[in-house]
Amino acid sequence: MVQVKQEYSVEEQAILAKKAAKKLSLLTTEQKNEALLTIASTLENHTDYILQANKIDLENGRKKGFNDALIDRLSLSTERIKDFANGLREVTELKDPIGDVLSSWKLENELDVKQIRVPLGVIGMVYEARPNVTVDATGLALKSGNAIVLKGGSSAISSNKAIVDIIHLALKETSIPKEAVQFISSTNRETTQQLFTMKEHIDVLIPRGGASLIQAVVNNATVPVLETGVGNCHIYIDEHADVEKTIRILINAKTDRPAVCNAAETVLVHDAWLQKHKNELVQAFKEYKIEVYGDEKTVKEIPDAKEANESDWAEEYLRLAIAMKVVNDVDEAIEHIETYGTKHSEAIITENGQAAARFMSLVDAAALYHNASTRFTDGGALGFGAEIGISTQKLHARGPMGLPALTTIKYMMSGNGQVR
Amino acid sequence: MVQVKQEYSVEEQAILAKKAAKKLSLLTTEQKNEALLTIASTLENHTDYILQANKIDLENGRKKGFNDALIDRLSLSTERIKDFANGLREVTELKDPIGDVLSSWKLENELDVKQIRVPLGVIGMVYEARPNVTVDATGLALKSGNAIVLKGGSSAISSNKAIVDIIHLALKETSIPKEAVQFISSTNRETTQQLFTMKEHIDVLIPRGGASLIQAVVNNATVPVLETGVGNCHIYIDEHADVEKTIRILINAKTDRPAVCNAAETVLVHDAWLQKHKNELVQAFKEYKIEVYGDEKTVKEIPDAKEANESDWAEEYLRLAIAMKVVNDVDEAIEHIETYGTKHSEAIITENGQAAARFMSLVDAAALYHNASTRFTDGGALGFGAEIGISTQKLHARGPMGLPALTTIKYMMSGNGQVR
Repeated sequence: MVQVKQEYSVEEQAILAKKAAKKLSLLTTEQKNEALLTIASTLENHTDYILQANKIDLENGRKKGFNDALIDRLSLSTERIKDFANGLREVTELKDPIGDVLSSWKLENELDVKQIRVPLGVIGMVYEARPNVTVDATGLALKSGNAIVLKGGSSAISSNKAIVDIIHLALKETSIPKEAVQFISSTNRETTQQLFTMKEHIDVLIPRGGASLIQAVVNNATVPVLETGVGNCHIYIDEHADVEKTIRILINAKTDRPAVCNAAETVLVHDAWLQKHKNELVQAFKEYKIEVYGDEKTVKEIPDAKEANESDWAEEYLRLAIAMKVVNDVDEAIEHIETYGTKHSEAIITENGQAAARFMSLVDAAALYHNASTRFTDGGALGFGAEIGISTQKLHARGPMGLPALTTIKYMMSGNGQVR
Repeated sequence: MVQVKQEYSVEEQAILAKKAAKKLSLLTTEQKNEALLTIASTLENHTDYILQANKIDLENGRKKGFNDALIDRLSLSTERIKDFANGLREVTELKDPIGDVLSSWKLENELDVKQIRVPLGVIGMVYEARPNVTVDATGLALKSGNAIVLKGGSSAISSNKAIVDIIHLALKETSIPKEAVQFISSTNRETTQQLFTMKEHIDVLIPRGGASLIQAVVNNATVPVLETGVGNCHIYIDEHADVEKTIRILINAKTDRPAVCNAAETVLVHDAWLQKHKNELVQAFKEYKIEVYGDEKTVKEIPDAKEANESDWAEEYLRLAIAMKVVNDVDEAIEHIETYGTKHSEAIITENGQAAARFMSLVDAAALYHNASTRFTDGGALGFGAEIGISTQKLHARGPMGLPALTTIKYMMSGNGQVR
């Protein structure tokens, strides 16, 4: 069986990736799709190899006392590897953005100007425990003509290494040079810091994981970063919110998948609405077993609500718990979100168009919702196909990032001797 | 006369800017244009006040031994202030990008999705000696609905302060709160470092100036940076380059305005072309008094050429000097550019379509030229109107940055109770 040998330094790996990216940028959509399909079937054909490597990670995880949720995220199975392969097959169905002419025009002097989409070059992916990111990110990077340098978490290192072994094995049969996928197996800090500052060879860093991982990348990188994912999302229930819609949206946003970034973490409730509809709200919290951490008024009104600390307003619970604050108008809600939000997804529920318009204009976030659940902030749900992450920054790409987020543009000018 | 009092800390100034940005984001195009026109006429009406302040900078500059070029860049005149005002009037003619619906669609569940252009929020502008940046950047920021925090160079501080005094005076008469334009008058390092890391209040930093200023921002900022401007631009003269076009383009790219970033700094000459057309090249260098720093072969072939050091390949001469290297094919030219280029503007001159296509595909730069001068990399020349700078990075905006580069997007979802 093949083995990834750590025979290169991180810098050498990045240089190899950069060279491979040049070759990759010249391939056709068909060549890239064929390579992805080959990776998909090769992964399926080497399921045992990957599962064996996964066992090592799981044993180490249990020794380190990982909880069930963590062990579950780390666990692979024949089924999950099939999902990886099918994910890659879906990526082959996505439109290839490379070569798209975004605009073109002629200057008065007949100089022909085109703005063309090209790959970014080399993507540095920094992520935590889930081995699926290894496959998903590789598929999206290659499809968009980019090389990728993978730096996964140490708890999944054996699984990730095995997956990359198989990807390399598959790429040997394709037009994509295997150097286009680099896996960093060293886990020491210096290696990571090196990756963060290799501006010459790496075009962008994409961190995926918890808030502390993302902050570490943002604060230490000189390579440009696409910040992803932390979502402290709010639902504001306005005075004029329809009670049936409200309960449906709140429960969906909180309970459908509590561990994801577009789940609701705080509900802001207009005082007048609360006075009218307290019973429905209390009933919903009870039925769905949602713990409530609230301000003074909440604690008074909602049975079993615990007093919220300052930290509750900023917390991503990622479980069946919610912070609740009673507010007096839409502006108080906007201000609270301004203070504690992470610019991910924010919702207002109201039948009052003016309040909705004010909320949608003044709240600074990637996705704003009027009378709908925050759970739609997702590449799949919005129809982008697979996503590399959800950007919570304002530059380059904001919100769910599909293939176009992994590209840049070039101006291409053709002339016959034009000068200024 | 009004005075800017440094009564706030940099952080307080950034917070004021952020608050003002919210108000600014709600204004109409007409309100913003009116404000720019008011600034324009107020600047003209207070020319003397600005010129008096400028005198102080000029005196200090002369004491410090500034050369003529530097003194010229620093100097204001009635004429130049008129140019500032007219520049602002031109910005009012530009299309307002804010509110543009970039795309919109309905999900199957009838959830209405819109991708809408919104301002970035607060722009931090870090720049060197030219006081015109104070006016130009303010105009573009306000037109695109952004507040701006200005941090100019110490050599122009008196002029910049006076200009901002007048901008504030003008804004009092308009819908734009004067807090939307903040001027940092402190020049100590801590202040600058604070500005670079104020992620909560500042959305983007745009450095404009020399390479060392830009590197200082890139290396020390945690606020996202739009990297601008350093241009070590190459002209590659292919074996099959038409000699007349070649000389015209080379001379234009080198001599039209040698001090700007889109001027040529290195010429790569195919050996076979050189053997045929040496005389025309030598004659052109001589006629336009261009100093040549070359590799061994160049020194042998071009009379008066001096030997190039390694540093010459990376240097932005910004004067009538050029580095020259003789190469054997397009790939050697591409590799040289890969090593020394700054991803700004690169040109190939050839009648061979294949060589041109290879060069345009493989060279990684904002702007690629086939048979035209690099001097066209400019917002004005390409028809964007005014530009805030020329981005040499790949994320967000690449090449000349007009108003859209100062915006981001929001996803706005409207529903009637949709959940996942």
